[in-house]
Amino acid sequence: MEFEQAWLDYTKKASCKGSEDIKYICVKTRGEEQDELIKNGILELQRAFAGILGIELTVCQNLGEGHGICLTLTEGIQTEAYHVYENKGEITIEASDSKGILYGAFELIRQVRIGNPLGGLDLFKAPKMPMRMLNHWDNMDGSIERGYSGESFFFKQDRILVDERTVTYARLTASVGINAVVINNVNVKDAATWLITERYLDKVKELSDIFAGYGIKLYMSLNYAAPIELGELDSADPLSEDVRGWWKRQMELVFNRVPNLGGFLIKADSEGRPGPFTYGRTHADGANMLAEAAAPYGGKIIWRCFVYNCQQDWRDYKTDRARSGYDNFKGLDGEFLDNVILQIKNGPMDFQVREPVHPLFGGMTQTNQMLEVQIAQEYTGQQRHLCYLIPMFKEVLKFRTYVQEQDDTVEDIVSGRTFGQHNCGMAAVANTGDDANWTGHDMAAANWYGFGRLAFEPELSAEEIAKEWIRLTFGIDKQVEETLLFMLMTSWKAYEEYTSPLGIGWMVNPNYHYGPSVDGYEYSRWGTYHRADHMGIGVDRSREGTGYALLYNEPNASVYDDKEKCPDELLLFFHHIPYTWKLKSGKTVIQHIYDTHFDGVDMVDEMVERFMKLEGILPQKPYLRMVERFTHQKEHAREWRDQINAYFYRKSGISDEKGREIY
Amino acid sequence: MEFEQAWLDYTKKASCKGSEDIKYICVKTRGEEQDELIKNGILELQRAFAGILGIELTVCQNLGEGHGICLTLTEGIQTEAYHVYENKGEITIEASDSKGILYGAFELIRQVRIGNPLGGLDLFKAPKMPMRMLNHWDNMDGSIERGYSGESFFFKQDRILVDERTVTYARLTASVGINAVVINNVNVKDAATWLITERYLDKVKELSDIFAGYGIKLYMSLNYAAPIELGELDSADPLSEDVRGWWKRQMELVFNRVPNLGGFLIKADSEGRPGPFTYGRTHADGANMLAEAAAPYGGKIIWRCFVYNCQQDWRDYKTDRARSGYDNFKGLDGEFLDNVILQIKNGPMDFQVREPVHPLFGGMTQTNQMLEVQIAQEYTGQQRHLCYLIPMFKEVLKFRTYVQEQDDTVEDIVSGRTFGQHNCGMAAVANTGDDANWTGHDMAAANWYGFGRLAFEPELSAEEIAKEWIRLTFGIDKQVEETLLFMLMTSWKAYEEYTSPLGIGWMVNPNYHYGPSVDGYEYSRWGTYHRADHMGIGVDRSREGTGYALLYNEPNASVYDDKEKCPDELLLFFHHIPYTWKLKSGKTVIQHIYDTHFDGVDMVDEMVERFMKLEGILPQKPYLRMVERFTHQKEHAREWRDQINAYFYRKSGISDEKGREIY
Repeated sequence: MEFEQAWLDYTKKASCKGSEDIKYICVKTRGEEQDELIKNGILELQRAFAGILGIELTVCQNLGEGHGICLTLTEGIQTEAYHVYENKGEITIEASDSKGILYGAFELIRQVRIGNPLGGLDLFKAPKMPMRMLNHWDNMDGSIERGYSGESFFFKQDRILVDERTVTYARLTASVGINAVVINNVNVKDAATWLITERYLDKVKELSDIFAGYGIKLYMSLNYAAPIELGELDSADPLSEDVRGWWKRQMELVFNRVPNLGGFLIKADSEGRPGPFTYGRTHADGANMLAEAAAPYGGKIIWRCFVYNCQQDWRDYKTDRARSGYDNFKGLDGEFLDNVILQIKNGPMDFQVREPVHPLFGGMTQTNQMLEVQIAQEYTGQQRHLCYLIPMFKEVLKFRTYVQEQDDTVEDIVSGRTFGQHNCGMAAVANTGDDANWTGHDMAAANWYGFGRLAFEPELSAEEIAKEWIRLTFGIDKQVEETLLFMLMTSWKAYEEYTSPLGIGWMVNPNYHYGPSVDGYEYSRWGTYHRADHMGIGVDRSREGTGYALLYNEPNASVYDDKEKCPDELLLFFHHIPYTWKLKSGKTVIQHIYDTHFDGVDMVDEMVERFMKLEGILPQKPYLRMVERFTHQKEHAREWRDQINAYFYRKSGISDEKGREIY
Repeated sequence: MEFEQAWLDYTKKASCKGSEDIKYICVKTRGEEQDELIKNGILELQRAFAGILGIELTVCQNLGEGHGICLTLTEGIQTEAYHVYENKGEITIEASDSKGILYGAFELIRQVRIGNPLGGLDLFKAPKMPMRMLNHWDNMDGSIERGYSGESFFFKQDRILVDERTVTYARLTASVGINAVVINNVNVKDAATWLITERYLDKVKELSDIFAGYGIKLYMSLNYAAPIELGELDSADPLSEDVRGWWKRQMELVFNRVPNLGGFLIKADSEGRPGPFTYGRTHADGANMLAEAAAPYGGKIIWRCFVYNCQQDWRDYKTDRARSGYDNFKGLDGEFLDNVILQIKNGPMDFQVREPVHPLFGGMTQTNQMLEVQIAQEYTGQQRHLCYLIPMFKEVLKFRTYVQEQDDTVEDIVSGRTFGQHNCGMAAVANTGDDANWTGHDMAAANWYGFGRLAFEPELSAEEIAKEWIRLTFGIDKQVEETLLFMLMTSWKAYEEYTSPLGIGWMVNPNYHYGPSVDGYEYSRWGTYHRADHMGIGVDRSREGTGYALLYNEPNASVYDDKEKCPDELLLFFHHIPYTWKLKSGKTVIQHIYDTHFDGVDMVDEMVERFMKLEGILPQKPYLRMVERFTHQKEHAREWRDQINAYFYRKSGISDEKGREIY
């Protein structure tokens, strides 16, 4: 399959003040050999300078030979951090490790391409989060669970693919500071169970070696039942000596064969996946068994907290899926080994357009935690709608958990500041596939780019990240930048407005999760209800309801528990509210529903109208691809608007104050 | 795959008064050779008498040699009819054609097995409908569209299967008088397009030869775009000489190679299938082109009237899918050649549990018509729920169309009595697959059996047919008969009660059509809406609405048009009605909804309770299979009840008068 270069397209010419005299590149090590990362850094700088500026960088021993860039390995800088600065026309990229050098090289290229002059350049950057990870939900048959950008480029027909695209993927990923990648779906079945066996290890190593050259640790998702399914044992009990022994031998094999292996991701006892519950054991038992086996090799075990009863009876108003992550894991705080990291979704349900922050953040104090977000737009338009998610992730990161008086935000926790942890960070379910533009929707690439940048530098604003991405992808053009920035920054809000209102979520078609179906999940087994009747809507999660609101630390608990204090955008998540209830905005709930749905469509119309003016300015290929998506989004946003409004009008019998057409 | 003998299981012993002396079987022809049908008739009698009665029938020249059965070809009896009678201990099966002899043989076996004495036996039977057809929706990859009994036994991996099961299928089918079978899905794609080419004709002939031995004409579904897809022409325009020539050559090839070919079934311009509309031509143009090409070989063209706009906007209250069959075909009345038969579904929508009769019956007077019903339980429980459909078919057949003063029922029309037609009859979408018991649910076989019997002898009551099937399948046992008869005769009513109310239909999950989803088709493109709001529900198809009611002849039109006169069970099909409206039953609409849903579940509970008492009486294998299905039905009927009741309670805010639990 053909593929493009996304934000690393060096064919776009640019000018850069201060670059005129640069001709050389040199490396100063502390005596050690240049490793692959440094070589790749040099290569990247050579390609970029040649492509963008027409400058052929010659490798030399010492910059005495002329002006240039010096890659300098030094001491005393935090791992992965870099210092890029200009001094008398020379550019230095300084770091303590070769990964820092590589990141510095990408930083320099970025600075050149977004139009910053080299004179006076002085950037010191250190990643805030230790782990910055992508989770690919790629299956070995080549399909991608919740993939909206074609097929997998890691797997095809139960084979592992390693080719030119793999290298480009690693470059793109490393260029935004991502340092870990899980290559296979968390739902591990069939051939994927065998990834940790001789059948695949040669090829895993080959893939992993490419990653290593870009500072990316390779992770795999594990099948918890592997000891059984690989045909050797009749149990997967984490306390069984046979099972523990089996995993130790398997880990020894895998880590020895794949030196760049970072560890494993596990979805256990969730949505039909096997786990320690089968044997009456806890998640800590399960995770620790694997962690013990992986520890000798520095391996990490990332254990997902997405555990809930997916056989719920919709008639049951007491069981609350939102509570389940907390209820399952809170009691285990302190029991996990240090190389275990719990991976917790941003919200307690499942990547809806609006959810409260997961109460395990701030709920656990002695457990390594990683924030899981989803840039695959499963519930946010499936990369047919534009939905720039960085503003949402920013809100999550800034959320104060009140677990202590300061340094208590989600960002503090997953950066390790709150509890002095090192095994923590942020993971995103990836939005890539083998489409030429990698992400289906060209602008969805901003979420991939943005996730990496945000995890590395959470202090960046969503706008700053968006601007970088626009310039890197489409070059420097005022109209393009203003238009696309407006679109990106409007898109999440617009999507929220024309889809499910006030934090209630889930009004989508079952199974494929696309398009409106207000009752689609209402009478299902998934624990996902809105409880709308002719009087009102919402789930009572207050102390009088499921008590979920009380899982938060104060004052969050009191705010969420009280419908008068609860923020509008989460009101229906926490409370069952009459349609005639006045929101803080002064509108009734029903009028809010109508207004936001009309407004959301208007926003889309404005986005698309502005976009259309870029005809002839944007390159034709991505322009036409996006025109097709935006045309669909316009139409589909109307479908959302009309179905949601019709549903609530038919149910409540209350007319729109403004007399607009509701069917 | 293993398979059972369904109602032709001759291992079940029986006694039969008057059979004691029978030892011989002879054939009296009019000088012609015995053909395959007669041979198969003899074989069937030999197998049956040996298995059931332990009597080995010896073939002899003349019954002078001893008591026995004489198969006599004579003159003056209607084709396919037979006379079976006893005289002085001798049994005669008399017919004008060998198919009549075969049918008579099956009749004699049936009489023996249902316990009738041979003494005094005197049955003359002639089929009322000329065509009695099964439509299999089998795909060549082995899947079955809307199949609930396993995979196809006609096709596998794009190959045609001919084996022992084919023969048993033909015997079962012929034993109930079915004389035509369409082997492949009406949606003809991929390999199935090639069925009419050299690639498959040898094998089609092989299959067809087996059918021929049981008096069954083989039909195939055609791809209207075959002239293009088989790669030869760039058009399928029915008025193009090239296209007409192509079809003539193709028909010549196929009919010559497959002498037992009856003709073709075509779904054109429907749900994405190609058709004459593409070329600005009419259905008559399309059908007649094919009919002309098939005529030299006595071939028939069966043209489906299931044509509607499947891209409807749910916001559009004017377009009415129910009208579309009528609107598309009524104007063509008289334009079709005599070897064209229009195949019309029983109702104007699509095999819902309750629909009015299709208005084309009685709407057309100069066109051959065939009634299409569906024994595949697509919308009636998918063979996981018991739903005996013969009572429904009886109602349809008895429906007076008032197209003339008498002989105006649907039965009259499709039997040919109304307009003196010969190309007419009844077709059923088949419910079979390669499950051991053929139909998934053991009791679903009663629909297969019953369809054939009803098409042959529409004067039989649903009870009579059910009794026959019970005795033939499970032997003669009073408790078994009473229980299963009660269950069969209750099942359609029960299913209607706990699913969608008052004729409105469609409250199922989209795509797979199983299980409740009240709004599942409400905001879709399929033209299938209930229009429920907080005040009422139903589609206004009166003269003030879509005018559909007026498509019927008087007095039907006036009855349906008037909400005061319209029968309760179709009220919501024809009118939008407030929940508080009093039905003829004296109940309000909303109370009717609640009551029927509670009652329907009670009926299921009673059915299942009675069934469970047959443990140890019924053979274990079918008993256990059915226990599993009935356990599911009990639970699933509750799901229907609770979802439907919750939906309407939440929408209307009106409580159940009886205070039962609604969620």
